[in-house]
Amino acid sequence: MEVGGDAIPRLMERLEQRMRSLAQENGPLLARYAGDTIAAGGKRLRPLLVCLSAGVPPPETEALVRAAVAVELVHAATLVHDDVLDGSSLRRGRPTVVAAAGRLLATATGDLLFSRAFAELAGAGSADAVRVLSRASSELAEGELMQRADAYAPGVSVERYLERCRLKTAVLFRAACSLGALEGGAELTSLGTFGEQIGVAFQILDDVLDVSGPPERTGKPVGTDLLDGTVTLPLILARQRDSDLAALDLRRLPPAEAAAVCQRITATGALDLARKRAFELVTAAKGSLPELPPRQRTALELVADGVVERYS
Amino acid sequence: MEVGGDAIPRLMERLEQRMRSLAQENGPLLARYAGDTIAAGGKRLRPLLVCLSAGVPPPETEALVRAAVAVELVHAATLVHDDVLDGSSLRRGRPTVVAAAGRLLATATGDLLFSRAFAELAGAGSADAVRVLSRASSELAEGELMQRADAYAPGVSVERYLERCRLKTAVLFRAACSLGALEGGAELTSLGTFGEQIGVAFQILDDVLDVSGPPERTGKPVGTDLLDGTVTLPLILARQRDSDLAALDLRRLPPAEAAAVCQRITATGALDLARKRAFELVTAAKGSLPELPPRQRTALELVADGVVERYS
Repeated sequence: MEVGGDAIPRLMERLEQRMRSLAQENGPLLARYAGDTIAAGGKRLRPLLVCLSAGVPPPETEALVRAAVAVELVHAATLVHDDVLDGSSLRRGRPTVVAAAGRLLATATGDLLFSRAFAELAGAGSADAVRVLSRASSELAEGELMQRADAYAPGVSVERYLERCRLKTAVLFRAACSLGALEGGAELTSLGTFGEQIGVAFQILDDVLDVSGPPERTGKPVGTDLLDGTVTLPLILARQRDSDLAALDLRRLPPAEAAAVCQRITATGALDLARKRAFELVTAAKGSLPELPPRQRTALELVADGVVERYS
Repeated sequence: MEVGGDAIPRLMERLEQRMRSLAQENGPLLARYAGDTIAAGGKRLRPLLVCLSAGVPPPETEALVRAAVAVELVHAATLVHDDVLDGSSLRRGRPTVVAAAGRLLATATGDLLFSRAFAELAGAGSADAVRVLSRASSELAEGELMQRADAYAPGVSVERYLERCRLKTAVLFRAACSLGALEGGAELTSLGTFGEQIGVAFQILDDVLDVSGPPERTGKPVGTDLLDGTVTLPLILARQRDSDLAALDLRRLPPAEAAAVCQRITATGALDLARKRAFELVTAAKGSLPELPPRQRTALELVADGVVERYS
């Protein structure tokens, strides 16, 4: 995706440099255990949203780089802790921190990443920015708590599922857009709403991938959510259409049968319905954008479409 | 301890109110699992340091209350996560969050408390304050990592032990004093040094209690650190005096023998030496205080002495 001109690659390179040096600055333990997570990792979708929300081209300020780094560090911290909670051994095809170092070190590593995120933001001197990120970070933890509370529950509603997606994922997309808007002077609330909607869409599509696979693409076996007891939109919709699935007790699901349940969910058409819901959210997100300079609007719309394209 | 006049009880009551409402505001899950930890808990030593470092009487500002709450929330977060890491079932004589709710919920609860701490501080609008707390919070996590790295190690030096005490405990005492100084206009560095020194003393005395007990007072069996592989000053000093202890492999220590090892450590005189070290640190801390109004100096000295008295 080529959006935002030369300033974006330069900002993203500064982000990568900062992430690499953070992995070094915090002692050998962080470098050893979190180095991969923070230095090598991922799509940098949230930092991209920070930058584009600040303007196109974005202002190439220290504060903007710090905001982008802070969001990505919170994201990395939640990944490390989620892997501890799920006992996951692979992430992006590599061993997780918890698999490499055990849950003790992984928990402390996640705490360190959280703390460093706020240190980054505070270094730029904006208490408003800290307020945005700390609110999001609280909600991420609430989302995690909600997911645990709902684990294996047979009667999770679509509304409750969507609220969980908002809390555990979308609030950080909202924060990314809000932090960019803070730095760039755009309107905070509308860009935040845009971020939140594509965040929910992102989570729905991620949950579809857990059912559809293929594992080569997701880096984990299909049906991982089912075995964790995480009730997602595909299962909720499939249960309305298949009485055997409605009667399924996830607590008693043998790991070897997870793939078969995924096929059964797919057969109900639930995946298409879930994808449709995500696409509608992306459309709504684009519609919610406030009045913006045309280049910035186009760039943000491209990112929104990119969330969908990765999964279609 | 009666220090600082009427303003202190009023500020501490505002702290308690805020802690109680935080336990409610963040949904039933937080109230259920962290409510005890944050609402009912502890000596509030760190908030007291925040208040007294701001002046005597301290300014009864919203920002000061928020700083005190933030420090106590970070403290609560580390307790919740430490209990997860140690698998502890009791804290202050009550079930830990991890014992009551499992490690999944406890990890997320700790994350939530961390995030709320930064939200509190950011609400007061000072990026300097966020910087102080995020630095401390990073170092706390580094201390936890260091403790895991050194677990069961036979050759931990006194210097390395003291550095671990600084990171895992004293930096939050330093932050408490620095946050108060920020609000009250006192000199940041010297009050921070004072806080750090009494923090190290506090940790040493806590480690002595793990060996000396009694369990009715500590709320946990003697020798818990030994069984966790945590090498503390009493053991380090005792090993220099008793060759059997020097040869002891903590990994192979049967739980039933922990109490006997504690008696053996006590017999070497190591506990008295460790206590002496702590007392010297408290004396040095009082000596490091900058020029302050006499009432403030007296109040801070009383807190420093209080750290010792609780243990002597």
